[in-house]
Amino acid sequence: MNAGSDTAEVKLDIESAARYLNMPQLRLKGLLDRRILSQIWNRSPYEGWDEHQRLFRFDKSVSKIEHGSVLYQKDGSFELIRGFPKIQRAMLLDPTLKKYFSNIETVAVEEKMNGYNVRLADIGGKVLAFTRGGLVCPYSTERAGQLLKRDFFDDHPDLVLCGEMAGPDNPYVPKDIYGIESLDFFVFDIRHKGSGAPYSLKERRKLAGKYGFRQVTFFGEFLLNEAPDEIISIIRELGIIQHEGVVIKDPQMVLNPIKYTCSQSNCADLRHAFKFYNDTGQDYFFSRVVREGFQSVEWDEDEEELQKRCFQLGESILRPMIESIKQVRNGARIADDVQIRVKYQDTIPTYKDYLKRLGVDAIFGVPQRIGDEYIVKIKKLNQSTNDKTESMCKGELW
Amino acid sequence: MNAGSDTAEVKLDIESAARYLNMPQLRLKGLLDRRILSQIWNRSPYEGWDEHQRLFRFDKSVSKIEHGSVLYQKDGSFELIRGFPKIQRAMLLDPTLKKYFSNIETVAVEEKMNGYNVRLADIGGKVLAFTRGGLVCPYSTERAGQLLKRDFFDDHPDLVLCGEMAGPDNPYVPKDIYGIESLDFFVFDIRHKGSGAPYSLKERRKLAGKYGFRQVTFFGEFLLNEAPDEIISIIRELGIIQHEGVVIKDPQMVLNPIKYTCSQSNCADLRHAFKFYNDTGQDYFFSRVVREGFQSVEWDEDEEELQKRCFQLGESILRPMIESIKQVRNGARIADDVQIRVKYQDTIPTYKDYLKRLGVDAIFGVPQRIGDEYIVKIKKLNQSTNDKTESMCKGELW
Repeated sequence: MNAGSDTAEVKLDIESAARYLNMPQLRLKGLLDRRILSQIWNRSPYEGWDEHQRLFRFDKSVSKIEHGSVLYQKDGSFELIRGFPKIQRAMLLDPTLKKYFSNIETVAVEEKMNGYNVRLADIGGKVLAFTRGGLVCPYSTERAGQLLKRDFFDDHPDLVLCGEMAGPDNPYVPKDIYGIESLDFFVFDIRHKGSGAPYSLKERRKLAGKYGFRQVTFFGEFLLNEAPDEIISIIRELGIIQHEGVVIKDPQMVLNPIKYTCSQSNCADLRHAFKFYNDTGQDYFFSRVVREGFQSVEWDEDEEELQKRCFQLGESILRPMIESIKQVRNGARIADDVQIRVKYQDTIPTYKDYLKRLGVDAIFGVPQRIGDEYIVKIKKLNQSTNDKTESMCKGELW
Repeated sequence: MNAGSDTAEVKLDIESAARYLNMPQLRLKGLLDRRILSQIWNRSPYEGWDEHQRLFRFDKSVSKIEHGSVLYQKDGSFELIRGFPKIQRAMLLDPTLKKYFSNIETVAVEEKMNGYNVRLADIGGKVLAFTRGGLVCPYSTERAGQLLKRDFFDDHPDLVLCGEMAGPDNPYVPKDIYGIESLDFFVFDIRHKGSGAPYSLKERRKLAGKYGFRQVTFFGEFLLNEAPDEIISIIRELGIIQHEGVVIKDPQMVLNPIKYTCSQSNCADLRHAFKFYNDTGQDYFFSRVVREGFQSVEWDEDEEELQKRCFQLGESILRPMIESIKQVRNGARIADDVQIRVKYQDTIPTYKDYLKRLGVDAIFGVPQRIGDEYIVKIKKLNQSTNDKTESMCKGELW
């Protein structure tokens, strides 16, 4: 494996692509002109392999094609890796489950893990890892190659394996909470290329199990009227161990799943976000704060519980921000410290280049050999928070 | 006094106006075309008086003319009421004062009151109250007529009186904290029409004093190197009595003033904002939260003080939101309850019309006679928070 060359321009065959996507040619041409559909800019994650140049990514949702969908222009035909559908959130479990799942009798509950969403698919004979946005993450692609055997993709070239990359060697959301030493891939969905149609939960667990894949925890299948109470007690347990939450699914996967998260996870998000208060979107803060309000109401909290929640919320916001301001005042720079673990040293410059093109300002440490792999510490600088805090400390006006 | 007729269209004499504003005609025409400059739409606040139709308002800052500036097209000449300049904020008092005021020796400190900013000016023989955005508020105009005698404007038709309307009979920011029974006007600036040039603090206090006007509290003039400590102790005192904060001024008013506020005021703002969590802009939350972080750092708080601040912040966010969710769940509608007190019953429909045109959904109660005035209770409905909360309670997804 070696860092590949930069992307050379490949023209999309508009006539054939429009036919394949069942879309008027003019509309497809408009998408290309506005760069809503554009060639993926990644360097090849495989040495001497340039099929990645034939990938085109949807930067927005278009008709029924989700944001992050990827079109692969093979020699004379096409494949479409559908973007992973947005999972909507229940703010109040009881009324939401009863309304949303009113036509089915039971719901299945699986864990929502705190890592990053990856879709794995075979593209022209190589497994690629696509991010939510439809880019090929070179680190995740290398890791997938280490974590999963190819046989699934050989047997099922028409399937997309969707799952969470979680663990400490995670350059996006590093978490120690799962007892994973490095990084692992947890399957939560198997879908067809093209249609995006999902396997039922049972079939998916069976198929993924057959190939020995790890999967997200399955908590059970519950009768609809018992589900809210069951889920609340799962959420309380998950909260205690700092896990994120659950995804509630129609076992047949006809209805889209919905999600619900623990207060502890909201607060952990806030702590991370307020460390970099000026870099994080304000809706990120706002949405988490509002969830706390709804959960407190649904859980019918007494004065003591409410006070505890207020204090935890306030602490999650103020402590990290105060820590960052003090650090900058003392001349230090605040950074998000993450790390990756790679098998091939060539993955490092490819990943560095990838982050750079994503606009992430990162400093890579010297690779440290651990067994037959290398750990690289990465400092992701949050320029806006550093700059703003520094200017306040120097006496600029807000 | 009587509710006047609707605005009839008046054409701006572009050639003369451009000359008066020292602006190319084409540019002025462009501003009119894009409605950045447009005729004010208020109904006349004075019976049979239609000079208000000759007012044109700047909806954005243009060249050196501030947002909220108002151009008055008299018969053959013009007057310009400059928008009230934005007052920037110190996040850390010590470095900011030393840097910003480095060229002067002392700074003057006055109270920043929590009401709404109003500019009073004589327009064609009548005193009008302009809001920050440059609209004529019919309520404030009536109140100004009751609170202030005309003699100042007769003697100084070229001056603009800037101040805070504060007190409980306040349809925007009702506050009981000032010991005011109804509403009062507190002068904090006197400026010239046209240039917007301010009086020095001393001259302003003298002139406003001569006409018997109430003014914002003056806390003193401090040497620059003593000012941060002096202001912090003023802020601590003001915080205890729930007042908002201070404005720090160059006594000569050559440099623009800057502001600094109490934690208690930030938290009071948050309490009000989170009652209507889905109606308030997210930057409103964010800015107040960030202020808390900087203040805690500058005040070098110990663990106990920090815990208190965390708890207060969390409470200011969660309690009002939880209260609103519970209210809506119980079938009530949440509303901002305010009141106005008017001398002339005709002000009521004019003000109602004004709020409606501002897009505020308000229910006016039956006027209650108090002495020779009328109190009208107003329920301002916050539709977005009501709708969102109701839909969550009905089980919709976020």
